[in-house]
Amino acid sequence: MRLDGSVRDPNALHMAVLEQVRQRAHDYDLLHFHLDYYPFSLFSRQSTPFVTTLHGRLDLPEHQVVFATFPSIPVISISDAQRRPVSRAGWIRTIHHGLPERLLTPQPITPTYFAFLGRISPEKAVDQAIWIAKRSGIPLKIAAKVDAVDRDYFESEIRKLLAPPDVEYIGEISDGEKSSFLSGAIALLAPIAWPEPFGLVLIEAMACGTPVIAFNRGSVPEIVEDGLTGFIVERKEEAIAATDQLSWLSRGAIRRRFEERFTARRMAREYLAVYRSLIDKRRPRRSTHHAGEFLAPSIAGAFAEKAALKKSRRSGTKVAFNGEVTRQRNQ
Amino acid sequence: MRLDGSVRDPNALHMAVLEQVRQRAHDYDLLHFHLDYYPFSLFSRQSTPFVTTLHGRLDLPEHQVVFATFPSIPVISISDAQRRPVSRAGWIRTIHHGLPERLLTPQPITPTYFAFLGRISPEKAVDQAIWIAKRSGIPLKIAAKVDAVDRDYFESEIRKLLAPPDVEYIGEISDGEKSSFLSGAIALLAPIAWPEPFGLVLIEAMACGTPVIAFNRGSVPEIVEDGLTGFIVERKEEAIAATDQLSWLSRGAIRRRFEERFTARRMAREYLAVYRSLIDKRRPRRSTHHAGEFLAPSIAGAFAEKAALKKSRRSGTKVAFNGEVTRQRNQ
Repeated sequence: MRLDGSVRDPNALHMAVLEQVRQRAHDYDLLHFHLDYYPFSLFSRQSTPFVTTLHGRLDLPEHQVVFATFPSIPVISISDAQRRPVSRAGWIRTIHHGLPERLLTPQPITPTYFAFLGRISPEKAVDQAIWIAKRSGIPLKIAAKVDAVDRDYFESEIRKLLAPPDVEYIGEISDGEKSSFLSGAIALLAPIAWPEPFGLVLIEAMACGTPVIAFNRGSVPEIVEDGLTGFIVERKEEAIAATDQLSWLSRGAIRRRFEERFTARRMAREYLAVYRSLIDKRRPRRSTHHAGEFLAPSIAGAFAEKAALKKSRRSGTKVAFNGEVTRQRNQ
Repeated sequence: MRLDGSVRDPNALHMAVLEQVRQRAHDYDLLHFHLDYYPFSLFSRQSTPFVTTLHGRLDLPEHQVVFATFPSIPVISISDAQRRPVSRAGWIRTIHHGLPERLLTPQPITPTYFAFLGRISPEKAVDQAIWIAKRSGIPLKIAAKVDAVDRDYFESEIRKLLAPPDVEYIGEISDGEKSSFLSGAIALLAPIAWPEPFGLVLIEAMACGTPVIAFNRGSVPEIVEDGLTGFIVERKEEAIAATDQLSWLSRGAIRRRFEERFTARRMAREYLAVYRSLIDKRRPRRSTHHAGEFLAPSIAGAFAEKAALKKSRRSGTKVAFNGEVTRQRNQ
C-alpha cells in the first residue's frame, strides 16, 4: 500500500489491511510487518509467527507505555542505537538497511564539492552543513526535498543562506541522479541534530565511494567507520578539521565496505535467518532444505517493493509483507 | 485518556489502551469505544459485546475501504447525515449528542449582537458570519479558538476582517462563560462550509434559548427546527432575510426543545437501550431489572468524563468506556 498526500486518514487503510491479512494469516508461514505497534494486539492472538521491523525513533514518552504493554512481541531494530530508549521491547535482532548492490555506483568524476542529500528540516541541520562548507572554502551542493511541514523553516531559516555558486540548492533528485551527485562530492556532510535510527544517505554515499563527515548521533557510529569510510565528529569545528583528513581515505575501500556491510542481499539473508528461527520455534521443519537458499531472491525483491502480500512459489514457505506505516514528523 | 499537544505519537497510547482493555474484556458485560475503527479487528474476535460511536466525518475515499472491510461491526452514528457516505457500515442507531440539562441556561440579558462560537477554520466559515452581520447592521462577537493548523488561515484571511466594535474577537471562552455569551446573542450564526456530523454549538445555543441561523449542511436539519429553534438557509443572502424573522421565535420554546431533545440524560437513556439490546443478543438476561433504571446516572457521568474504564457497582452490569481518538483536521 503506497500512501500519497491525497489520503487524509491513513489509519483507516492500515486497519483495513490488517484485518485482511488477519483473515488470511493461516495461509502463511510467517508475517513480517512494517506498521509499528499496530499489529501487536491482533496478531499476538493467532498462531502464525510474526515479526515487526520498527523504522522510527522510539524516544518519545508514549513509546515507554506501548513497549511496556507489549514486552514479548518480537521486534527488529534497524540500529542498536534505536533500541536505547526502550530496552524492554522484545528485541530479537538489529538488521541494518541495505541497498541493491548496483543501484548506486562510483562514477569517474573528479570530486569538487561537498554534498548534502535528503530532506531540509531542523533535524537534518543543513545550516550546519552550510557553515562547515563556507569555513572550509569548498562549495556545497544541496539535493534535498522540503516537506510541507518544513516549508516555514526553509523560508525563514534556510533560504537566506543559499548563495550560489558557493551554496547551491538543486532540489530533490532521483535515485538515477544520485550516483553522479555523490561521486562528484569530496564528502557527504551529515551534521544531524537528532538520534536518527538509520541514515540511508550514509550508505548511499558509501555505495559511490564517497566519504561521510557525520555528527555522532543515533546510529552514526554503527554505520560510519571513523578513519575508513569517513569521520565521526562531535561539533562543527571538528568537522572543519576532518575535511583536511579526507585525502587519506580510499574511495575504493569505502565502496568495498559498502559491498561487505550494506547490500540488500546481506539484509535479506539476515531477515531470512530471523524468519527461519521464528518458524522453527513454532513447529518442526517441513523440509531439510534451508529456506534461505531458496527464498533469498524473491523475498529481497518483495522487501524492496514493500509489497503487501508476496509468496514464494518455489519452496512452499510463504511470507506476508505489510506496507510501511505513514511516519509522523521526526520518526 | 486525555491527549494534549505534548503527545506526538497518540497511536502508541491508543494501541496500548486497546491491549489493556482486551486483557480485561471478560470482566465487562459490554465495551463502548470512541476510537473510530481501531478496535474492530481485535474485539470482533472475542466474546464480550462491543459498540463504537463514530464521531468524525466519513466522506473520505479511505472510509469506503474500511467500512467495506468491517460491514457487520456495530456502530452508532451521531447524526443520520453522518451515515450517508458509508451506508454499508453496521449502523445500529443514530444517537444525537446531549448536554447536562443545567450546564448552560438562559440568562436575563437583553440580546444585542450576533454570536459566532467554536473554532476559526475554513469549514466553520467565520468570514460568512462577518458578512451576514455587517449586511444586517448588527454587531458580531466571535468566541473561538484558533488551532495551530488554522493559524495561517486566521492571519491571512480573517484578521483583516476583525474591526471592533462591529466585529469583535474575544478568543476562546469556557463553559462557564457560554450562558452569558449566548444569552446576550440575538442569534448564533453557523454558516458552516462542510458536512458537520454534529454541531455541538447548535445545542449550546438552544440550551440558552438562543435562535440559530445555520447553513443547510450535514446534520443541521436534524438539529435545527426551521421556524421553531432557528432558520436553516442555503446561502448568506437567505441568512440576511432570516435575521428579519428572528423576532417571531420564542426563546422559551427554544429552551423547551433543548430539554425535550438534547439533554445528556436523553442521550444516556438511548445508549443504555443499545447496551441492553447488544447484551441480550449475546446471552439471556441475568435479572428482571431493566438495566437502564439502575445505570443511567453512573453511565451518563462516565460518558461525560470520557473515562477509560468505569463500572457500575450497583447493578453488577459493567461497561467499559474507551477514550476519544485524536481527530485529524476536519473530522
